[in-house]
Amino acid sequence: MEQGIHIITVATDDLVAARRFYVGGLGWRPVFELAGEIQFYQVAPGQVLGLFDAEKLSEDIGDGRDHGTPSGFTLAHNVHDADAVHRTVERLERAGGTVLKHPQPAAVPGMLHAYVQDPVGVVWEIAYNPGWRVEADGAVVFD
Amino acid sequence: MEQGIHIITVATDDLVAARRFYVGGLGWRPVFELAGEIQFYQVAPGQVLGLFDAEKLSEDIGDGRDHGTPSGFTLAHNVHDADAVHRTVERLERAGGTVLKHPQPAAVPGMLHAYVQDPVGVVWEIAYNPGWRVEADGAVVFD
Repeated sequence: MEQGIHIITVATDDLVAARRFYVGGLGWRPVFELAGEIQFYQVAPGQVLGLFDAEKLSEDIGDGRDHGTPSGFTLAHNVHDADAVHRTVERLERAGGTVLKHPQPAAVPGMLHAYVQDPVGVVWEIAYNPGWRVEADGAVVFD
Repeated sequence: MEQGIHIITVATDDLVAARRFYVGGLGWRPVFELAGEIQFYQVAPGQVLGLFDAEKLSEDIGDGRDHGTPSGFTLAHNVHDADAVHRTVERLERAGGTVLKHPQPAAVPGMLHAYVQDPVGVVWEIAYNPGWRVEADGAVVFD
């Protein structure tokens, strides 16, 4: 198995609320959508975020357990300067997100971050990290 | 906020088991690692998977709740043919993964998939999907 992720699929009970937030609030565009079932948004080269009806995801896994509530993970979105952390958190809040942690210095020197929860329950970290660098070929480097 | 994810961070109580699976079992290489705290693996251009000590992740979010158990989401890994689904599932099982669903046809025509849970609790979907295509610029297309 090569080192890679192609789809991040998140369970949700409310695809309408999810669409209101990502499309209506943030202006994201789905690359594929099936009403009442799934929405796919491209989030990296060769990779999509899928929002999947919770019942259908549990059925698809099919091990008899409930896989219906997203928890125990976060998705991070890095921006290019400290001001952009504030602007992005405000934008997320206007779109219907809940601020869990207002922008403040993180443990990493020079880093500013915040946490915002979307209507599906996904916790997003919004951060400016001067030690995060991406090379021309997409390689991530921690300085 | 641009349409993008830079880090997928997953909570875990056992970074040693996580390392045994991803490094020892699968041969993945961390781009950055802090013993007892975090491991980062590159999983897409400009993106890493972070395995973060559960207590430290909850502290980092800092809203007084426990964010310690990954559930309600899956990560998908696509391979190039049906045989590779079988081989990858066997590899994951040998590395210490638990098969939740053995390789079988999925709802999408021509697609074969399986689900395997890693020692951290993350559910991986392993799939061959003839309708999944990535263009030279990284754009994902569903045929």
